[in-house]
Formats: sequence, C-alpha cells, structure tokens
Amino acid sequence: MYLIGVIGSQKASEKAKSIAYEVGKLIALNNFVLVCGGLDGVMEAASKGAFDHGGLTVGILPDKDKKNANPYIKIPIASGMGYARNFCIVQSADCLIAIEGSYGTLNEISAALNLQKTVIGLECSWNIEGMKFANSPQEAIELAKKFIFS
Amino acid sequence: MYLIGVIGSQKASEKAKSIAYEVGKLIALNNFVLVCGGLDGVMEAASKGAFDHGGLTVGILPDKDKKNANPYIKIPIASGMGYARNFCIVQSADCLIAIEGSYGTLNEISAALNLQKTVIGLECSWNIEGMKFANSPQEAIELAKKFIFS
Amino acid sequence: MYLIGVIGSQKASEKAKSIAYEVGKLIALNNFVLVCGGLDGVMEAASKGAFDHGGLTVGILPDKDKKNANPYIKIPIASGMGYARNFCIVQSADCLIAIEGSYGTLNEISAALNLQKTVIGLECSWNIEGMKFANSPQEAIELAKKFIFS
Amino acid sequence: MYLIGVIGSQKASEKAKSIAYEVGKLIALNNFVLVCGGLDGVMEAASKGAFDHGGLTVGILPDKDKKNANPYIKIPIASGMGYARNFCIVQSADCLIAIEGSYGTLNEISAALNLQKTVIGLECSWNIEGMKFANSPQEAIELAKKFIFS
Repeated sequence: MYLIGVIGSQKASEKAKSIAYEVGKLIALNNFVLVCGGLDGVMEAASKGAFDHGGLTVGILPDKDKKNANPYIKIPIASGMGYARNFCIVQSADCLIAIEGSYGTLNEISAALNLQKTVIGLECSWNIEGMKFANSPQEAIELAKKFIFS
Repeated sequence: MYLIGVIGSQKASEKAKSIAYEVGKLIALNNFVLVCGGLDGVMEAASKGAFDHGGLTVGILPDKDKKNANPYIKIPIASGMGYARNFCIVQSADCLIAIEGSYGTLNEISAALNLQKTVIGLECSWNIEGMKFANSPQEAIELAKKFIFS
Repeated sequence: MYLIGVIGSQKASEKAKSIAYEVGKLIALNNFVLVCGGLDGVMEAASKGAFDHGGLTVGILPDKDKKNANPYIKIPIASGMGYARNFCIVQSADCLIAIEGSYGTLNEISAALNLQKTVIGLECSWNIEGMKFANSPQEAIELAKKFIFS
Repeated sequence: MYLIGVIGSQKASEKAKSIAYEVGKLIALNNFVLVCGGLDGVMEAASKGAFDHGGLTVGILPDKDKKNANPYIKIPIASGMGYARNFCIVQSADCLIAIEGSYGTLNEISAALNLQKTVIGLECSWNIEGMKFANSPQEAIELAKKFIFS
C-alpha cells in the first residue's frame, strides 16, 4: 500500500477545504492510503473525502492521546511529540500534496524536500524551489502516481 | 477501529513467535487493527498472523524510512525517532499484549502502565505490578475485548 | 564534560529528595554536569543540590516550552516530545543514578539498560537485572566515576 | 541563562562559517548560551566562536549517541529523533539566528515562526515573512538582546 500525505492549513479557506476533499476522494478511489496530521482544516476535509469513498485514513496526531483526531480518521497515531510529528508524516508518505498552508505546512514541505520526497503544491501558499505544482486535484493525483510508480 | 498493540522480543523464541502468530490472527478475526514496532521476532509473527487472516497491520518503525518494515506490515509509519517510537505504539494502542520480551518490551510496558493503559502479559518475561496476565492467545484477546469495550 | 543523569519519582518521599540533593551536590563537586527531566521531586532536589554547589544543570523537559522547569535548571531543553524525552536523558547521560521511582523511572531504566548504559540504583524502587546498586550518594558517585573513567 | 540558537548550513560557505564564528563569539561575550544542532558547517563554526571565548555550547544531535558532536560542543544532547530534533533546538532557544542555510534551516525557521519565536536572518538563504534581518554579527546580537530583554 502506498501512502499519500496531505498537508495544509488547519485554518483553511472554504476553497482549500473543497480542493482537499477532492484530493482525499481521489486518493481513496486510486487505492492509496491517506496520511495526514489528523486534525481539522485541510486535514479534515481530505480525510472526509477519502472516508466518504471507502478509503483508509491515517492521522498522526501531535498529542499523546487520540481524542482530537477528526472523525474521518480510521487509524489515529498518537505521537505525543507535538509538531515534530510533521517528520513522521513526511517520512511515512510516498509523496505529498500541499494545499494552502501556513508555517506548519512550510515546515512539512522543507522536511520533505530535505529527504528528496516529491511535494506537489495545489493552490499552495508556498512556492519553494524543488516543489512540483498541479492545477487541479486530478492533476495532483496523476503527478503523484507518476512519481510513486516511476 | 480499535488498535491492539503487540509488543515483545525482536529475538524471540519459536514458542513466542507461535503465540504471537495466534494473537495476530485473533486480532484480525475480531476486527481489530494490529499496531506494533514493525520489525522482526514477535512483531513479525504477530503481523503475519493478522496479515494471513485479512487484518490491518500498522508498524511504527524506529527508522526514518520504511525499508526495514517486516513484509506483513500494511501501513508502515517511519517515525525516525529511534526507540522513542515505543511511546507512539503505546499511546496509539487501546490495549497491549506483551509476549516474552527484553528491555525494549519492559520500556513499552512501563510507558503503557504510566499512561494507565491495560497491558496483558502472555508468556511474558516481565511481571510488573499493574499488568494483567493471560494463559492463551484466546484468553488474551478476550481480556483485551473486555477492557476495550467496558 | 561528562553528564550524569539523575532519574526518579516526581512525587518523591522526603528521604528520596534528601538523597537526591546529596547526589546532585556530589555531581557538582566532582565537576560533572547533571542532566535530568527538569521537573519536580527527585529531579528538583538533585538539581538544587548541584545548583547550590555551583554545578551545571540540564533539564530535558517533556513540554514544548521551558516554563515548567524547576528553578535550579540552568539549561532547560524544551523537547516537546512528552515522556519520550526519557530517551534523550538516557542517551545523553554517560551514567545514570536512579532514586526511588515509579513507572516513569522504570521506563528510563529499561531504555538505559537496552543501550548498555550503567544504571546505579540508590534506594531505588526497582531492581532490574543489569542494574548496579549503591548504599549511599558517595558510593553512587564513586561507582559512576569508575564506570565513566574505565 | 538565555539560549540563542544558531541555525544554518551543514555544508556552509567560508563566508558563512566566518560570520557564524563571530556570532558564536558574541553570544559567549554577552553571556548567552549557544544552542545548535551540534554538527558541522555553520553549527561548528558558531560553536568554535563561543568555545574559544569561554562560552557554553549545547548541541542537540539527531543521533542517539554523542560521537558526531563537533569538538566545540560542551554539552551534547543525543536526541535520537533525527531531524525532528530541529524542534528541540527551536523550542529551547529564546531567539534564533539563521546563517545561509538549505532545507534543514528552512525547517527550523518555519518551526520557530510557527511558535512566534524571533528569527534573525544574517546572510540567510531564506527570506520568509515574519523573519527579522541583520547586516552584521554585531547587529544580530543587538537585535537578539532587544528581543530577549524586551
């Protein structure tokens, strides 16, 4: 099973959440596992998109318990390591899709690029050298598939 | 979905591996998710037991990449935090079953008891105040179900 | 500079705190750096012992900020990784002295023994195979010096 | 004691190392503790600057042992959590100075800004909204003092 990480704002715009939902849906329909930080905003919208379409969702939480996981997380991982859990998400994902995002997302993008992982920006707030970009959820998933299977 | 953690020796006896396989099988047949450290010995045997019976297996690895996961791990989490990943396993599990085990297992048992999680020993090398004990894989799963659903 | 780790109960008895103070004092007088979890109980008493005698004290805290460090910690490290910070203490210490202690201390003892670090019990609640034992703070420091310099 | 974090390239230019040495020197002469990642490049140069001027240097290493610490680290912390140790550095520092730097440094900058910590760029490769900037080591330290003591 391949894992696609979805990273992005906890306080996300409606547009970002709508895009994230579509991304999550496509992750599920393409038989990938969605991995994310397990909280709200982009994370929750993507989780719901995958959940609603029968996908498996893994949320790696900052807390030491699972109670703050959004309701669409099937497998909550209670890391207890705070936002250093960003590294667990990035290291576990085979490819990442970044939607909107603030400093936390930049933290994940930089961790991923440092590990030479593919990061696909989609309406992403950040444009860091080394990222790839897509114009739609469909294009993002196609890019992800290309990187994972090549 | 409820997660049952299986902890135990990396260098396990044949008996421990046989017991771990049965535990993994029962975890799958009872629709629990198995979470473990993702490596070999008790972890691999339990993962195989669950895998062979259609179960979902999560391995939280010490490394920053996934290549050392045993082949029965469906969802590898590359924690990159070394053996401190023991805390992720314990915090994520709703209940733990400890089989045989050396210092690493003792580390997980103590972390779990500190969080007031249920730890069920099964042919376990350690007998720490606060642990519960079972005489068979079947009894261990029955105990786990009792603690999770009560 | 060599680091001696002092581990033990957060809710410590008066006796344990008195012993911890002496241990901290001897750590300072022998020009070692004290490393501990930075909180109260045995940790605070040992830190005060070292602090009062001009020693350097490092507290590796579970929190992501430094505000809960006891007042005798000169160098607070805000790990943000919860009790998984036990591993940072153990890995950083050249030798450990365990005083009284509950499950958290057992967690540190097992992590240390797993790394083949010397753990010296002093009025310690736990007696785990592989530990060494001392009958007084003076004897504990002498043992620590022997292990560090041999 | 206040801690100033110095972050920057492991593979640093001669210019960056020269600047880092001056920054380390000023950290020591102003009685701050230097905290860094403990490895080479900017980290080593800053550590040497502080070390040569009697300063205290703390290196929070990615490894689980201390052997890769640069020779100017007086207090090595073996985090064992890989590059997630970036969070320990950022959370422990009262203010950060970023010199040159690649993705790893960007990771630390974003973690710091997310925690609303002051990050002062000095010949820094990154210009992220929220950072402050200085034109010389002297100016960087003056800015750091202003932020720490205001």
